[in-house]
Amino acid sequence: MTIAVLRLGHRPARDKRVTTHVALTARAFGADAVLVSTKDAGLERGLRSVTAKFGGPFEVRTGVPWREVVRTWKGAIVHLTMYGEPMEDVLPRIPTDADLLIVVGAEKVPRAVFDLATFNVSVGNQPHSEVAALAVFLDRLLQGAGLRRAFRGRLRVVPSKRGKNVETFES
Amino acid sequence: MTIAVLRLGHRPARDKRVTTHVALTARAFGADAVLVSTKDAGLERGLRSVTAKFGGPFEVRTGVPWREVVRTWKGAIVHLTMYGEPMEDVLPRIPTDADLLIVVGAEKVPRAVFDLATFNVSVGNQPHSEVAALAVFLDRLLQGAGLRRAFRGRLRVVPSKRGKNVETFES
Repeated sequence: MTIAVLRLGHRPARDKRVTTHVALTARAFGADAVLVSTKDAGLERGLRSVTAKFGGPFEVRTGVPWREVVRTWKGAIVHLTMYGEPMEDVLPRIPTDADLLIVVGAEKVPRAVFDLATFNVSVGNQPHSEVAALAVFLDRLLQGAGLRRAFRGRLRVVPSKRGKNVETFES
Repeated sequence: MTIAVLRLGHRPARDKRVTTHVALTARAFGADAVLVSTKDAGLERGLRSVTAKFGGPFEVRTGVPWREVVRTWKGAIVHLTMYGEPMEDVLPRIPTDADLLIVVGAEKVPRAVFDLATFNVSVGNQPHSEVAALAVFLDRLLQGAGLRRAFRGRLRVVPSKRGKNVETFES
């Protein structure tokens, strides 16, 4: 099962930090790729730098034609929205033997996304954050396995009660 | 058990959107209050507006003296950091009969926070997002109960397979 996250409505100046959080969350919680509808070379560089340091594989593509991605996707499409069906109800219905596209918007999401999604899914019906929704959805979907995935990079954090402990490997 | 989230290192211009996501995530996932170390009247207004519309109680305070909050806190203090002990190991050790302060930083967190925290906790040891870390930590801590909390506001989202369905109540 390949999991890709599609980020819609990214405005490079305004959304730089939140979209970076979306992409890092996708990577850390078990997705294989993030696709961003707006071109943003800085975002690509930043993410590739993290993947080089902390390990991959993780793919970043910006400037992707989102309608085409959604229309030609082979597998289920989950659109995360506070207006959708509760996550708990949808999770058992998501096929685990096919690829999965998870769509998260910035501000307004085009109506077509609600129509083209296989499932419109809410992580709670309160306003909060696409970063929070993505993290909790992936955590529940993969039952924590995404977080436990081993990455091989130049740096590895060693869990510690106090302070920071980072191992560095020769490349 | 009262849960407060303390946001450190907020720079109003740069972190406006991410801190808003932190605060909304705190509210939606079961915390009772968010305390922000920097004064930010716009952030307070935004959050109070959401709470008026979608329901409370949820407290927002900015410009709080964080060292004093941390030093005088009665209860456990969890500092969320990618360098900390794994969440799975810490969760069973968190007392459920006392108040809990959850600390999340922006960029660099002062060394004192690592020392003053009862637990330094990692939600995975990969770089990602304080919004994601807070959401998943609260979701695991409260075993989903935070997300199921009933709010009473002027607006209520009715879960829907397609589109948006919002009930409005007279105030």
